[in-house]
Amino acid sequence: MSVTVINYDRDVTRWEPNARGRLEQAAMKLYVERGFEQTTVADIAKQAGLSERTFFRHFADKREVLFWGSGALQELLVSSIASAPAEVSPIEAIAGALETAGALLQERRDGALLRQSVIAANAELQERELIKLASLASALADALRQRGVRDPAASLCSETGIVVFKVAFGRWISETNPQSFPYLIRELFDELKGVAAGD
Amino acid sequence: MSVTVINYDRDVTRWEPNARGRLEQAAMKLYVERGFEQTTVADIAKQAGLSERTFFRHFADKREVLFWGSGALQELLVSSIASAPAEVSPIEAIAGALETAGALLQERRDGALLRQSVIAANAELQERELIKLASLASALADALRQRGVRDPAASLCSETGIVVFKVAFGRWISETNPQSFPYLIRELFDELKGVAAGD
Repeated sequence: MSVTVINYDRDVTRWEPNARGRLEQAAMKLYVERGFEQTTVADIAKQAGLSERTFFRHFADKREVLFWGSGALQELLVSSIASAPAEVSPIEAIAGALETAGALLQERRDGALLRQSVIAANAELQERELIKLASLASALADALRQRGVRDPAASLCSETGIVVFKVAFGRWISETNPQSFPYLIRELFDELKGVAAGD
Repeated sequence: MSVTVINYDRDVTRWEPNARGRLEQAAMKLYVERGFEQTTVADIAKQAGLSERTFFRHFADKREVLFWGSGALQELLVSSIASAPAEVSPIEAIAGALETAGALLQERRDGALLRQSVIAANAELQERELIKLASLASALADALRQRGVRDPAASLCSETGIVVFKVAFGRWISETNPQSFPYLIRELFDELKGVAAGD
């Protein structure tokens, strides 16, 4: 008779309520206090009262704690563009999608501020952010092409939309009493219209 | 009486006509043939018939061969914006500067094509390119602020200008019989005006 040995690993099977959120919170706290480079995964796990193994079940590395949200953001934007009525212009489809994303971020302003301060302090993270935004722009252009928008309009609208989003984000996090993020996004799309026309 | 010993280094003092251009040409040839990563500074120097020491007098590393031009490009754009008449609108100042740069690049299309193929094949180089473009956009925004343009118009115009430049560049290098680069830039600024207005 063979005996099945169950290699029982307590850590893997233990239920850890909101481990992901706790790890994220712990990581942000340490990144702000000590700096991103000086923080190890072991530090983060300890701060969260969880194991390193648990950390790696949720995040590939310590950088991913800052960037995992960009996948969800991209899906949100792409599905918003896809669901816009056919008569909506390309730039309006992009603007509407970004306003929707802005409204979600509006509820997480404190987290966005912290994240931004960590990224601003580290050149490697700034590069990563640029790459994420570039690939986001590509995804938006693809979503426009799916709606039948041709190039170069598809690339122009999506890349310009990312510019508006970046500039609006900068205002939103730097002003002490800013307008809401979706409001700023809308305002800057109007401003874009003006500056592009040579106002 | 003291004797001054001149440490004569033949390599440092030898006159090498167009060493920089020869090194650049040799590097591009090898980057295209072998790939950027597989090419060493020693390979480049040998290919150019020069020493590694000469290479390092002209370039900090093998990556700089691809990016040294961005400093000159930035100076050209900034001075063009600064010299535009006061009544010229911000977007027109940017468009005019980019057209001037486009006309210069037009004469170097083969080199631009080669450079682009090397960069497209390497993720690290693509990141570097994104960073250079981001810092170029900052420099253009500063040049607009010097003209009295306020934010967010200054950021919007300069970042949007870089978008137009990128999209125009993509068309210029991918089409077999493209319009001239400055023509494509002008055309895309017109297109931008249309898409921003919701056409």
